Amino acid sequence: MTLMKEASSGRVPQSIERVARKEGIDPAKLARLVAAGRVVIPGNVRREGLDPAGIGEMLAVKVNVNLGTSQNLDSAEVEVEKALAASEAGADAVMDLSTGGDLDLVRKKILAAVKVPLGTVPIYQAAVKQELTSQGMFDALERHARDGVDFVTVHAGVNKISLERLRQDPRLMGLVSRGGSLTMKYIADTGEENPYYQEFDYLLEIAREYELTLSLGDGLRPGCIEDASDRAKYMEFIMLGELVKRARAAGVQAMVEGPGHVPADEIETSVRAMKHLTGGAPLYLLGPLVTDVAPGYDHITAAMGGVIAGMAGADFLCATTPSEHLDLPNREDVIEGTYVTRIAAHAADLTRPGVRERARSWDLQMSRARAALDWDGQFQAAINPARAKQIRHRRGLETDTCTMCSELCAIRLAKEAMEKERDKDPKRA
Amino acid sequence: MTLMKEASSGRVPQSIERVARKEGIDPAKLARLVAAGRVVIPGNVRREGLDPAGIGEMLAVKVNVNLGTSQNLDSAEVEVEKALAASEAGADAVMDLSTGGDLDLVRKKILAAVKVPLGTVPIYQAAVKQELTSQGMFDALERHARDGVDFVTVHAGVNKISLERLRQDPRLMGLVSRGGSLTMKYIADTGEENPYYQEFDYLLEIAREYELTLSLGDGLRPGCIEDASDRAKYMEFIMLGELVKRARAAGVQAMVEGPGHVPADEIETSVRAMKHLTGGAPLYLLGPLVTDVAPGYDHITAAMGGVIAGMAGADFLCATTPSEHLDLPNREDVIEGTYVTRIAAHAADLTRPGVRERARSWDLQMSRARAALDWDGQFQAAINPARAKQIRHRRGLETDTCTMCSELCAIRLAKEAMEKERDKDPKRA
Repeated sequence: MTLMKEASSGRVPQSIERVARKEGIDPAKLARLVAAGRVVIPGNVRREGLDPAGIGEMLAVKVNVNLGTSQNLDSAEVEVEKALAASEAGADAVMDLSTGGDLDLVRKKILAAVKVPLGTVPIYQAAVKQELTSQGMFDALERHARDGVDFVTVHAGVNKISLERLRQDPRLMGLVSRGGSLTMKYIADTGEENPYYQEFDYLLEIAREYELTLSLGDGLRPGCIEDASDRAKYMEFIMLGELVKRARAAGVQAMVEGPGHVPADEIETSVRAMKHLTGGAPLYLLGPLVTDVAPGYDHITAAMGGVIAGMAGADFLCATTPSEHLDLPNREDVIEGTYVTRIAAHAADLTRPGVRERARSWDLQMSRARAALDWDGQFQAAINPARAKQIRHRRGLETDTCTMCSELCAIRLAKEAMEKERDKDPKRA
Repeated sequence: MTLMKEASSGRVPQSIERVARKEGIDPAKLARLVAAGRVVIPGNVRREGLDPAGIGEMLAVKVNVNLGTSQNLDSAEVEVEKALAASEAGADAVMDLSTGGDLDLVRKKILAAVKVPLGTVPIYQAAVKQELTSQGMFDALERHARDGVDFVTVHAGVNKISLERLRQDPRLMGLVSRGGSLTMKYIADTGEENPYYQEFDYLLEIAREYELTLSLGDGLRPGCIEDASDRAKYMEFIMLGELVKRARAAGVQAMVEGPGHVPADEIETSVRAMKHLTGGAPLYLLGPLVTDVAPGYDHITAAMGGVIAGMAGADFLCATTPSEHLDLPNREDVIEGTYVTRIAAHAADLTRPGVRERARSWDLQMSRARAALDWDGQFQAAINPARAKQIRHRRGLETDTCTMCSELCAIRLAKEAMEKERDKDPKRA
């Protein structure tokens, strides 16, 4: 019985119990959200040592970090190091997007190294093996499922219907999703429909067997501000909504991926539309990047969009790194991207129904330490204590205030003035 | 005659002409906005070599960068270097917040070094000179005006009325504005009203004489998420609104400063309230930082808030740096803070009435270069070309795609698939 079916039956499986404890939510309530498909808890039946994470409504916004070799840079060891670094920096999940070297080896090593849920994109393996066929795509999917992968991106919404909308309204940048463009290539080369769409029921059978969570891929995501929020993208949302419905009926957990590059004022509408069209499926966003002009800072442009998206209802943010659009991320990029995306997720949590109060207690801890000029307390409450300490101590000066204000510390001055007022007027004490 | 009066008379002074050209706005329209006090163009009559910048409605969001010595770190040369670095990184204005060393010297050196408008906070000088008296505060203000400073922060809204609201509803962190807390100290020590409020008409006389733009300071800005959007802060908005009205009547340009630390979902309301209460005065924001927990990344937490604030109507963003809350910024911090804040300003511009189309042409330039895999074009369009180049070339690999996708370049794959489709069906070509 799948997790959704079990949750529907009124039982509270162990993974739901564990996630409920971490999130501080009532387990029975969480089970209802899982049963309704509004929360997913990826966890392949074959995965060992998983620390499960919940993604969706009423839960904290989660952060995924992408890893993986490319054809130029294919060391498995380096990717394992990145996976560990991401996990230490607080990633809630990682995805292995490898396209170079021994893909099976990289995947197995990452699965063995980390406890967080692992996602993959099986079509990459089919493409790398020159098996971009229906058979090749399903072979790759099943292999990943057998290896214990917890969630897979399948670009099942890239099909003849949505591509026709793209043809009616061409874009500046076309497709920028690798999985989306491979699917488009398959359709163009063969004249056949996308196998993951055409044989979606078969895909659901595999997913059911392994408790594989589907991440319905955002193959038509816009690659630039100019292309954002177009009809092709909305068509794909509609397709994904239909597929979510079918997945739920089959007891298969499914989330939906969203764009991409989106101007800040279109994000809320876009997120709300995706939630409507997909029946409130957990929403996994790649960005959204709020401008195109900042290569080298795209972990930040994505995090800016991530805060706005998280406020509007996005549940899962994919970290972008400083090397986005430029180079394969190195370990330092992965760490930086993870922290910055976690900041976006937390800033959204401060506004998020069901999560807000718990999230605010963290900020309160920091503020109390700040008000007391308690530096150790501030470091402890910092999202990255090592970074904060390094900056504070880099000049080797020791003061109880900071070198920004020195003796003119506003916090201290104001406190003294307040106390003076109180002394003058004991009624106010 | 002041700039506002001149603009009201229907003439278009040279500084308005220059700003209109830079912004691509009709000069007569800009003159009307200046006359109405909805745009300010700071420019002291004594300032030499100024490249004027417009701040307010229908104009691009501007970025200020704070500089200045502190009592521990008081080198004038270092601050001049930072000012030049900020200016090269694209700052639209700088503020000298020095509190250590020879304040007059630092100010004069920065004024001579840069062409962007310079702002200061005269009360710091009064405090450092142990002259926190009415005389001392006005002496400092007049000295800065005589030196050619273009805009000054005066915390005239921190007065007995707004402080009473604070007493009725105490905060976790009290005041975190240095100018605000010094004013509070003055009131507590002397029992007198804030001189800048009490003698605001005298302040306006000085401002009028030198064409000194007032930046009505945000002395009661919240220092943490817990304290955001409280009654004391709204009381200060109301006070500042009254002062804006008096400044306009006197022909003195005035903008208003806003918080601070604000949860993401309170920013829009806060910005709109400030705009309402101040008659649409140009709004200058310090942050807003969307969480307290990320010291070391507060240039980013502030920029996240900056995008949302800019969308809601904020006109001027004060850059925060990675060392905020920890240490006086060094040159690298200033550069990083400037770029990240410029990204926020630009992301807001992409949504901003009157600015949107011009702003989008920049992103379009980048996207066209990306779609063509034209790397030189991408570097040219990048907000920080050096950063983008460094990441792209750091491994010494040369490919026409990037190492992220290598041969599986989505852009290229999709383009080929599109072309294949077109070849099959010539009607679509």
